Order: sequence, then C-alpha cells, then structure tokens
Amino acid sequence: MSPADIQLDAAGNLEHFLTIDGLSRELLTEILDKTEGFLGVAEQAVKKVPLCRGKTVANLFFETSTRTRTTFELAAKRLSADVLNLNIGTSATAKGETLLDTLRNLEAMHVDMFVVRHAESGAAHFIAEHADPHVSIVNAGDGRHSHPTQAMLDMFTIRRHKGDFADLCVAVVGDVLNSRVARSQLAALRTLGVGEIRIIAPRTLIPAHAESLGARVFHDLRLGVRDVDVIIMLRLQRERMRGGMLPSEHEYFQLFGLTEERLGTAKPDAIVMHPGPINRGVEMSSQVADGPRSVILEQVSNGIAVRMAVMSMCIGTQNLRAQGELHG
Amino acid sequence: MSPADIQLDAAGNLEHFLTIDGLSRELLTEILDKTEGFLGVAEQAVKKVPLCRGKTVANLFFETSTRTRTTFELAAKRLSADVLNLNIGTSATAKGETLLDTLRNLEAMHVDMFVVRHAESGAAHFIAEHADPHVSIVNAGDGRHSHPTQAMLDMFTIRRHKGDFADLCVAVVGDVLNSRVARSQLAALRTLGVGEIRIIAPRTLIPAHAESLGARVFHDLRLGVRDVDVIIMLRLQRERMRGGMLPSEHEYFQLFGLTEERLGTAKPDAIVMHPGPINRGVEMSSQVADGPRSVILEQVSNGIAVRMAVMSMCIGTQNLRAQGELHG
Amino acid sequence: MSPADIQLDAAGNLEHFLTIDGLSRELLTEILDKTEGFLGVAEQAVKKVPLCRGKTVANLFFETSTRTRTTFELAAKRLSADVLNLNIGTSATAKGETLLDTLRNLEAMHVDMFVVRHAESGAAHFIAEHADPHVSIVNAGDGRHSHPTQAMLDMFTIRRHKGDFADLCVAVVGDVLNSRVARSQLAALRTLGVGEIRIIAPRTLIPAHAESLGARVFHDLRLGVRDVDVIIMLRLQRERMRGGMLPSEHEYFQLFGLTEERLGTAKPDAIVMHPGPINRGVEMSSQVADGPRSVILEQVSNGIAVRMAVMSMCIGTQNLRAQGELHG
Repeated sequence: MSPADIQLDAAGNLEHFLTIDGLSRELLTEILDKTEGFLGVAEQAVKKVPLCRGKTVANLFFETSTRTRTTFELAAKRLSADVLNLNIGTSATAKGETLLDTLRNLEAMHVDMFVVRHAESGAAHFIAEHADPHVSIVNAGDGRHSHPTQAMLDMFTIRRHKGDFADLCVAVVGDVLNSRVARSQLAALRTLGVGEIRIIAPRTLIPAHAESLGARVFHDLRLGVRDVDVIIMLRLQRERMRGGMLPSEHEYFQLFGLTEERLGTAKPDAIVMHPGPINRGVEMSSQVADGPRSVILEQVSNGIAVRMAVMSMCIGTQNLRAQGELHG
Repeated sequence: MSPADIQLDAAGNLEHFLTIDGLSRELLTEILDKTEGFLGVAEQAVKKVPLCRGKTVANLFFETSTRTRTTFELAAKRLSADVLNLNIGTSATAKGETLLDTLRNLEAMHVDMFVVRHAESGAAHFIAEHADPHVSIVNAGDGRHSHPTQAMLDMFTIRRHKGDFADLCVAVVGDVLNSRVARSQLAALRTLGVGEIRIIAPRTLIPAHAESLGARVFHDLRLGVRDVDVIIMLRLQRERMRGGMLPSEHEYFQLFGLTEERLGTAKPDAIVMHPGPINRGVEMSSQVADGPRSVILEQVSNGIAVRMAVMSMCIGTQNLRAQGELHG
Repeated sequence: MSPADIQLDAAGNLEHFLTIDGLSRELLTEILDKTEGFLGVAEQAVKKVPLCRGKTVANLFFETSTRTRTTFELAAKRLSADVLNLNIGTSATAKGETLLDTLRNLEAMHVDMFVVRHAESGAAHFIAEHADPHVSIVNAGDGRHSHPTQAMLDMFTIRRHKGDFADLCVAVVGDVLNSRVARSQLAALRTLGVGEIRIIAPRTLIPAHAESLGARVFHDLRLGVRDVDVIIMLRLQRERMRGGMLPSEHEYFQLFGLTEERLGTAKPDAIVMHPGPINRGVEMSSQVADGPRSVILEQVSNGIAVRMAVMSMCIGTQNLRAQGELHG
C-alpha cells in the first residue's frame, strides 16, 4: 500500500502519521490549524485536556532518543493518555521474539498508539502495514527516511512567523543527503506551496534528485541565504563524519556554519531554525543560536503542540472507527 | 506460615497473591469471575476504572522482564493507580542496603502493593511474611517456583473456550521440571477439577512427583495430545539448554515441537496455548502459532484483565482492613 | 545573587528550594507547618490532592539515586503532577549539548519544576540562576554542598517528637566534613534555634569552621551523646574511605558506631535518626537501627510529606506569578 493510502481511512481522516509524502495540503493545513489550538494548553494553569483519557500510548524506541521520547511522552500525558515507555532493544525481542510477535502482544494489551523510533528506514511503515486496525502508528524517526512530526513543527513555526507559505523563500542547510528531517521538511515545504526552496550543502551531501524535486541547489552558504525568509539548519551527525564524506567540524563551520555576518545577506526579518540539539560552533555560532532571529526554542514548544494535534487526530479517527463498528 | 494462610485474611479475602497452592476452587473461581468483568474495560473508549485511584503500586523487579512488567503496569494504570517502576538491581540494595531495609523504606512511603519478580524461589513469600500488613504482595514470578497470574490467565482462557473444567483433558508440554509457569498451571488445573491432566516432556524434564500429582506422563508428543481439549506449550528456556539437560533446538522441535500434523490427533476444537514469547520453530511451528486453534494472543489480553482482578481484590481487602481499623 | 535572594520572590514566597542558608526561621516553620497537613494525605484511602494537577515535574538526575528520585516522584504524583524521569547522563548532553541548552529545551516544553541531583556543588543554584522565571528548581542533592529536603524532613521528625527546638541538644555524628546532608542539617538546626548543636566525628572529618558555626565538637562518641535529645547519624560514604581519610569499617564502628550501650548516656527519650540507606554494623548496630528509639522509617514517611509541602509551595508561587502577569 502506498504511504499516502495507509495513513488515511476511507473518509480521508488521519489514522497513522508516517511520512509527509502523499498527504494533501489540506491535511497538513488541518494539522497546523489544530496545533494552533493545542498551543494554548501549555499556557493554562492545568496543562491537560481529556481528549485521550483512558487511551494507552506505547513509545517503542528501538533507537534511544531521550529528547524525542520526552516530547511524545509530554504530549500524550497532556492529552491525559497513559504512557508506556518501552526500550525494545532490551526487552522481548532480545529473547528471540520477532518484531511482529512483539507488536501482536502489545495490540493484545489494547495499546491504542505506537510511537515508533527505529534506525531502519521504513520501520514505522512496516509496523503500520501489519498492525491491527485499532492501533495508530506515529513515526518518531525511521532511519534516513522520515521524521514527519519534526517537519510539521517546523512548518508550524514558519507559519506563525511568516503567514502564507506561497511568497516565502526557504533554505535548508547541511547534510540533506542523510537527513530524515530534511526529507520530511522538503516534502512539507513543497506540499504547502512554498515559493522557493533552496538546498545549501557540500556537493557530497546533496541528494541525487534534489533539483528534480523543485529545489535550487547551492554549494556556497553566502550565496544560498541571500534574500531568504527562513533558514533551516540541519544537525550534523558527527558519527557520519568518519566516512570521509564530511570535512572536519572546524572546516565545516568555516564553509557552512551560520554566523551573524553570513546571515547579513538574508532578509532582515529572516528566521533561523534548527531541530536540536545544536552543535555550537559547528552548524552555527552561539551568537546566531541565541540571537534575535533564532526561533529554535519556539520550535521545541511548538513540537509538543504538533504532537498533541497529530496524536489526538489519530485517536479521533480510531474513536470514529470504534463507533462505526458499534453501530454498523 | 503456610502459603495458603498468608494469602488470605481472617475472613478468607485475598490479601496477597503468591501461589496457587492452598487456594480453594471457590477463590480461583472468584478470580475468574471478576476477570470476566475487567475484560470489558479494555473495550471501552476510556479504558480506566477508578478502583485503585490514589493507591501506589511498586513494580519490584529483581529480574528484568519488560513484558511481564508492562502487563502489570497497564493493569495498575487502568485501575487508576500510581505506578513506580523500580529496578532493584540498580538501586539501594546496590549501596549495601538489605532487602528488608528496602522493603521497610517503601512501606514507609505508603506503597500499597508490591509486584515482585525475583530469580529466587520463595522471594515473594519471604517479602509477604515480612511486609507491613497494609501492603499486598503479588508474585510476578519467583525462580522455578510459581507464576500464579500467568496460571490464572491460562485458566481464564480455557474457561472462555471450554466452559466447565470437569470434562476437559489438558496437556502441558515441555520443560515441566524447571518451569514456574507449569508448576502454577498444574496446581490450578487440579484445584479447578480438570478431568485429566497430562504432562508431555522428555524424561529429563519431568518432575519426580509428577504422577503422584495426578498427572499422566507422556514422553511422546503424538500420543500425549491424542484427544486433548487443551494443549499448553511451555517456553523453552534456551539458557537452560547448555547444561546438557536438553538436546539441540532442532532436535527438540523434531521430538516435542507442535506442528499441524501432530495436532491432528487432538480433538478437532482443541486450543493451543503458550505463555510467550514463542520460540518459533522450537516449541511450535509458525503455522500452529498463527493458526486457527492458537489462542496465544487472547491469553495476553486476558492477562491484563486477570491482573486487574487480582490487584483490585487485594486492594479491596486492604480497604476493608483500613475501615476495620478506623471503626474498630 | 545570594542563595537567600534567589529562592524567594519579591513578596518572600518560596520559588526555588536550593539550600537552607539564608532562609528565615519563619519560612522553615511554614514548611514544617505545611508538611503537617500533607502527612495526612498518605493516610487517606485516595492518597492524592489536586494541587499540582496539570503541572509537569522533571526529575533531572545527573547522579543516579533511585531512592531519592522515588520520593520526589511519589510526592509529585500524590500532588497530581505529571512526572518526567530524565537520566541526563544518557540523554542529549551525551550528544554534545550543553547543560544550558538542555535546560532551555525543557523550559520550552513548559516543564514547571526541575528536581535536580548533581555530583557538583552549586549545580542546582547555577540552574536556578539561569532558568526561566516560570520554572522552579528543587535541589535533591548537589555535591558536598546541600540536601535541603533531607534536612527539613529531619527537622520535621524532630519537631514531631520533641516539640520546641529551643530546649534541645542535637548531635550530628559522622563524616560532617563531606556530607551535604550534615551541612543542610546544621544550617536548619541553627536557623530553628536549637539550644545546643554538637558535632561528633574523627578529627579528619570535622569542617574547619565547625565551632565558629556554633557547634560543640566531640571526638568521642560516648562523651558526645551524653544528655542529648536527638542523635543524627550520617551515612558513611564507603567510596570515600579509600583516600585514607577514614579507618576501616570495622574500626569506624569500634569508634563511632552507635550501640545500645553507647546510647545509654543520652537522655532516656532520645531519638536516633539516619538518612538511609543504613550500613548496619558500620554507623550503628542493628539493635539500635530497629530499636525503640529509632525514628528512621518515620523520616522516610515524613520525607514524602516535606517534599509535597516544598513542591506545592513553589508551584503556588508560580501560580501567583502567572496570575500577576495575567492581570498586571
């Protein structure tokens, strides 16, 4: 089944959130609109809504990520769900159980949602294909493939600052080739109709099909950020530097590190984004990271609200299905 | 104190759940009846009942088991209890504190229930003997001794499919000698008055007293499953195979692995059970595990409901005691 | 900013709880009075109050301590807060993120309170200085500096047994030099106006300024405990014994271990305290630890109530601030 088909029910409601690919501009806009509503929950004295009360969300992290797990755990708890944190590496699969047996067991425990992080591309999709129809899957990052909630929080942050996407010029800077975040961002930017998309990266880190995707490619940061509205910095995966695909961190900063000076050619009100955690002095200077154009911490706040929106939409679709089964 | 005496209060209510031994058919039937009621909770839109709200359940896992810990955690949360997960191996006992000091401390924190998993037989009983009367202990598996909630979920699964126990023939297949699950299952089957109990295992894995316990012993799977209503497969503890007590996995499957063909001599509506996680191709073929007679995933669902039943019964007994202290 | 100033808002309400130093007798008494109220929560059938419902408490443990983390987690849950357990050693800081970036991220997730445990003295203070004004910091132990909730639960335990502090003689016994617990206890005893404070320790384990702090110093346990009302034993940090500052455990017990016999010179109704976990046969005999004068387990119970008091006071101050921002 295609990624688009598997994510939606027959009426077009969001059942799983695996990838941006194949989702319509209307659906992405619906996520952004719902996020707007959840942003206020964090400002309330009681930061909780009962939308997922009595639901069970299992964080299935085959790859450790305290930061991402924390944001999903907080989003689920603020939706009043019960949360199970499962570090799958150390559990039943270690006893020789297959992944599908682990899934079947969690389904039998009436878990309603799996938040999946996995080192292999396609893992969340595979799980969604094989999961019971009463379970929703949210992809929290799979290999080099997709990280759709990160992309949506970025889109939300852009919309809050810039309004309409059509007139914007957005640059994505860094290791685009290997980044699941970039892959999802580029798909979301295209779907939302961003006027101009730029990729700024060393030649070795540009995906082969970049220009066919409608992105303009730059190998010079200074030229690339000229007149942009939004600069999205990617995180440099230090562990990938060993293979010789990347120069040293120092050299990288010399060539692709964002500084106040280099930022000078961007629009005066350009915003700077980063998915975190930042490598200060590698992807950007501390001056930029902590400067007036940085919206990096807003991204974190927005991330909780986006995850609440996506999780509550999927659970809402499950509730509709259950009512249909009851009455149909 | 005998296991039976320590588990019940003076009025015969369940205070601790340590072992099947010594419990009456009436009490086991009460657990099964209550489980019936909790099964529906998992089907509700809000999978929660307030029976243990404001109670604290501590999972004391001296032996790691994500799967079992998860089922108890879910059961407690669906009863609205607060749950503490304590991996005791890494905590205060590592600082030289004795087990009893750890217990006393948790009691002083007003924990209401300890769910105990321990590699040594008798650990849960020892803790119950020394615990404050306001704390209930539930055994989540102790050494080779007992795993009573697993046995009760198996009994519940049998009753759902077969109704009355008296007319049934039930076979337990595998390493009966070393299995705490088997020990509890055999006690429950006897207490509930199962018509015929069979043990099917290699000669080296039969307990010495098997036949005196009222079980018929078979060393040939084909003969053993003839005309049975229920086949309970045990999990092969791979780590126990090294000692030479067991042949290789391949040989084991040749002799005691359940296949569709071998299943042919059982009753046509016979059900196949396994406590999980399955070693596919060792204890049974995937065809059997995923086939129409397998009720393995139902067992998992039933496991949550059984644990909710047992936990709420023990907490109910604690509430009665507290009221008695208040008014007496 | 001085420790006293940073802990209170302009109206003198508790915002952070970092150290006893600089807090007034009135404020410490307010904490003790509020603790009195929370003690009853643990005796209720439903051990929960809604004071912190919808608030998020993050346990930031840079140094592992299951016992202390558990008491804070329980206190937070009984206040109805959502709790995040973050083992910082294994998370983002390991990816090269700075401590401040980790903090900024958690603030952006609208965490309301950080409970901080850190091996370095001053860590909680540093975090409070740099934290967003909407976040409260509670120190759960920093290096050799301070452990203020432990000190307050000790004061509460003393007050429950002895009433007025003015007429008491309290002895602190053990490694006063290296103990953050002792440092906080001595500050609290002084602030609350205890009549006579004694330090009993080997010469190598007495802080240089002990007598200037108003404490009488003893190097002989027998002489030191004569006529005291309260004996506070410190935990011997076994890992600190290697440096040659301490004799062997056996020798230590010979010289400074509390026995029934040595306890004979104290007042007949003297109480014995210890922060746990006890090294039996090192700091004291089991006879004393489990004897009629020991209030060690009461300290544990009181610890939950003290933490509920401190946490709810800090959250209350945050609520006042939020209301002020709303209406001002």
